[in-house]
Amino acid sequence: MKHNFGAGPGILPQEVLKQSAEAVINFNGTGLSILEISHRSKEFEAVLDEAVALVKELFEVPEGYSVLFLQGGASTQFAMVPYNLLGDGQKAAYLESGVWANKALKEAKFFGEVAVVASSKEANFTFIPKDYEIPADAAYFHVTSNNTIYGTQLHQFPKSPVPMVCDMSSDIFSRKINVADFGLIYAGAQKNMGPAGVTLVIVKNEILGQIERKIPAMLNYKVQIEGGSMYNTPPVFAIYVSMLTLNWIKAKGGVEAIEQDNIAKSRALYAEIERNPFFKPVAATEDRSHMNVCFVMENPDNEKAFLKLCDEKGIVGIKGHRSVGGFRASIYNALPITSVHVLIEAMQEFAEKNK
Amino acid sequence: MKHNFGAGPGILPQEVLKQSAEAVINFNGTGLSILEISHRSKEFEAVLDEAVALVKELFEVPEGYSVLFLQGGASTQFAMVPYNLLGDGQKAAYLESGVWANKALKEAKFFGEVAVVASSKEANFTFIPKDYEIPADAAYFHVTSNNTIYGTQLHQFPKSPVPMVCDMSSDIFSRKINVADFGLIYAGAQKNMGPAGVTLVIVKNEILGQIERKIPAMLNYKVQIEGGSMYNTPPVFAIYVSMLTLNWIKAKGGVEAIEQDNIAKSRALYAEIERNPFFKPVAATEDRSHMNVCFVMENPDNEKAFLKLCDEKGIVGIKGHRSVGGFRASIYNALPITSVHVLIEAMQEFAEKNK
Repeated sequence: MKHNFGAGPGILPQEVLKQSAEAVINFNGTGLSILEISHRSKEFEAVLDEAVALVKELFEVPEGYSVLFLQGGASTQFAMVPYNLLGDGQKAAYLESGVWANKALKEAKFFGEVAVVASSKEANFTFIPKDYEIPADAAYFHVTSNNTIYGTQLHQFPKSPVPMVCDMSSDIFSRKINVADFGLIYAGAQKNMGPAGVTLVIVKNEILGQIERKIPAMLNYKVQIEGGSMYNTPPVFAIYVSMLTLNWIKAKGGVEAIEQDNIAKSRALYAEIERNPFFKPVAATEDRSHMNVCFVMENPDNEKAFLKLCDEKGIVGIKGHRSVGGFRASIYNALPITSVHVLIEAMQEFAEKNK
Repeated sequence: MKHNFGAGPGILPQEVLKQSAEAVINFNGTGLSILEISHRSKEFEAVLDEAVALVKELFEVPEGYSVLFLQGGASTQFAMVPYNLLGDGQKAAYLESGVWANKALKEAKFFGEVAVVASSKEANFTFIPKDYEIPADAAYFHVTSNNTIYGTQLHQFPKSPVPMVCDMSSDIFSRKINVADFGLIYAGAQKNMGPAGVTLVIVKNEILGQIERKIPAMLNYKVQIEGGSMYNTPPVFAIYVSMLTLNWIKAKGGVEAIEQDNIAKSRALYAEIERNPFFKPVAATEDRSHMNVCFVMENPDNEKAFLKLCDEKGIVGIKGHRSVGGFRASIYNALPITSVHVLIEAMQEFAEKNK
């Protein structure tokens, strides 16, 4: 039994894996694999329709928004967002809360001016900047909702005078959000929604088509909307697994129930980090993520031994990102609280042995 | 038992499907699913390395070329090729041999001038244009090696005075090619190489970096080469299945052996189409594809009944594209010749019953 704390591609529900494996052999009784059916078959069209409907249902997506399943990851969105929304001579506002936010704003500079409204770079991104002003003449305002590497999360979205664009790659469907607050939401699937290879986009239709630029078809949200995410062959299997995962979330009681579970998991783990004299947290208290819990050891010499103990207990994927060091426990939706308990016990056992 | 003649996503080898399903539950004895392992794990890095090595081995890729596994399908390559290779004020040459070639050249027009060297559009693309001249001042020359919809295939590549770029989406690894003849080859995986969601690119390094344009990271071949196809999270599972399929091709004796099988399959099927008075071929004789065999019925009123007979025999995916009508039997690498025999028997049975 493994306890998968990997930062992403991350843990998926066991029942989703089981159904996915079955569909690789025989999809829905068609006698064909999900890997070899036409994306234009009625069976796959039903999968895509269901995935879109589940996104709308789970997030209560209002009228006037489109839901897309695209390829290329959040990194492609870093360019696609300004390609579609940032006209020549216009300015976009970015909050720099981590390396991914930084990569996003660098891509925007290919298309127009970028105003960084605030940054926590000097503090190695251990907190989320607050008390900044969003320029009212910006084409849009871009935020990253959760910063995987540093274990910080935006618990309160700012009021934005311009369309707010949000990279939710590492906390999509982990908590309730108000879609109407956003102009565009995007997320690589591979943390809470499915396997690597598909990217969710939820976009308010009226913010599109406002600029003059000619946009290649695959990078044009309007083309993708018209094609119903099938302008070209979509990533069939990744969409199928996402549909199953969205159904799993629904069966768990939806994002509100999931959010309670995630809060319980992160509270339990943070409590141990605070209590245990061998460990200390990385992120600022008020910005602690419910998805990625980053911590280091009081004595870094102990880290190798603790990692070994984790390995013995089947705890995997817990090594911190090289830019932070220490440990990162990613506790995505599909990670059961029992796995968190196993980690806490390992921390206690380590402290006991080494006191 | 189904006989999958679908045009794509198409048939994959049964042993590949079996191994893929197993890896969805437990990948290489890691105790984790291939859908939830880190792309930076040594286990997945080995998969990607093996996939790249197999491409190089099967196609005898010479020094100086890079092999990439990207996202976004051939349609993204339609834009990425000119983004990287067609400078402002430059001209690119395109052979218009089908709808996909047409889509490719339309995307190039976003970036520079397009010279269509020849087109078979007036004849509904039933043949491959020949005897054209490739302008020596073009930045590159673009061809589509196989035209899925019309069942035509380029059996002899032209000599090009400029780098030749080829969309091999529907015949990659179906036959021997000389990679040194090409500047860039690209192919969506979902016909002969793997599932939908990954795109193979083989590019001659020296043709890159020749133009001034600033290119977003995900669309920049040089960035993707530097990142070893992992500038961002790659489509892990689609690459894994591709690696298995490439290994299957190798075990079958490589592309030369596969090519002989494909020729045998297409010859058998074309022979029946020629012989059987109820059917007639669509594509020009000398341009007939070994991948997609398109045919119609002498009396179109019979098509519904023949489709019904196919359905009874487990023959699926054989309906022709709406722009051609009739039937399209896609006989990709993984389709066994026994399935072709089942189709031939159905054609004979139909003729016998209705004579």
